[in-house]
Amino acid sequence: MQLSNDPYRLFKQFLSLHLEADDQITEFCKKFKHKKTKKNELLLSVDEVCSYLYFVNSGCLRIYLLDNNGNESTRFLVTENKFGTSFPSFKLQEPSLASIQSLEPADLLYISYKDFNVLLHEYPAWERIYRIILEKEYIESIKRIESLITMDAKQRYQALMETSPSFIQRFPSRMIADYLGISQETLSRLKSKR
Amino acid sequence: MQLSNDPYRLFKQFLSLHLEADDQITEFCKKFKHKKTKKNELLLSVDEVCSYLYFVNSGCLRIYLLDNNGNESTRFLVTENKFGTSFPSFKLQEPSLASIQSLEPADLLYISYKDFNVLLHEYPAWERIYRIILEKEYIESIKRIESLITMDAKQRYQALMETSPSFIQRFPSRMIADYLGISQETLSRLKSKR
Repeated sequence: MQLSNDPYRLFKQFLSLHLEADDQITEFCKKFKHKKTKKNELLLSVDEVCSYLYFVNSGCLRIYLLDNNGNESTRFLVTENKFGTSFPSFKLQEPSLASIQSLEPADLLYISYKDFNVLLHEYPAWERIYRIILEKEYIESIKRIESLITMDAKQRYQALMETSPSFIQRFPSRMIADYLGISQETLSRLKSKR
Repeated sequence: MQLSNDPYRLFKQFLSLHLEADDQITEFCKKFKHKKTKKNELLLSVDEVCSYLYFVNSGCLRIYLLDNNGNESTRFLVTENKFGTSFPSFKLQEPSLASIQSLEPADLLYISYKDFNVLLHEYPAWERIYRIILEKEYIESIKRIESLITMDAKQRYQALMETSPSFIQRFPSRMIADYLGISQETLSRLKSKR
């Protein structure tokens, strides 16, 4: 098997940034299972309890909400080399407000809530890695709040062009507009101006 | 000295929920200093690097942003028994986008970035406590994003009445409207309807 076909390659790379002992990398990989998803496959529906934390090898997970009128709103887009889940539901084991969809065909690793907690209680190194993931995700969520409360449509579009320029080409306009909290008309206007 | 006058009482209570050894509580308290602030005192200005993590004994810290037009937007309100800082700036030691203001006269504990990292590297128990704080704050930030992207003014007001009913009486209408991302007129209308 070629190294590039190893579904744990990216995950091991991530772990090796924060770990010294190779044996721990092996232990952590054992708890993560591998799966492939189809485009638009639903991994979690609203009101289900979220049982898994995902690591994205390729593809994109969309974590989204439905409002009272049945409109979808994208909370997060989770792309390669990142972790994602419906975090409040996963952590508190409560029904999820959000759904998780595989926006593109995806190659994923995933760990169950139970195995996640086994790692957390048995390996201080996993506690540290989890803390580092939390810090990054928390900072991203703060930036998302900042963009929602202080930026107008143009500024949000510019910020996305700076942080994730590939999103604009990669995802449907409807999804980008929804992620930015702006109308599709405004998004087309901003794209054409550029 | 009466127990109730001990500025470390709430902090020790919080720590004792997650720690078994009393000697660690003492070590952690040693790294936190105590201070009182005046109403509206500025603890961090935009573009400064945030050097401290705060624990609120009493009062309220407001973490807010300025938009290009000089308008203030409240990102978080941090009340009793909670931790607060301009997290991206504190963690990454970068200039802060947000400012921190003591909205009311406050009684605070605070730890420097340097001492925070000493605890983090020397005490696995502090790593765990910090991880628990991060989980709570991350969940709060996700709920804040959800309210901003899916709720209308009435729903945001109702959600605040459920999670933090005291805020409505405690803080100026201008601040509440700003925190909810709605106009003061809409807020008065919602308040009078109730």
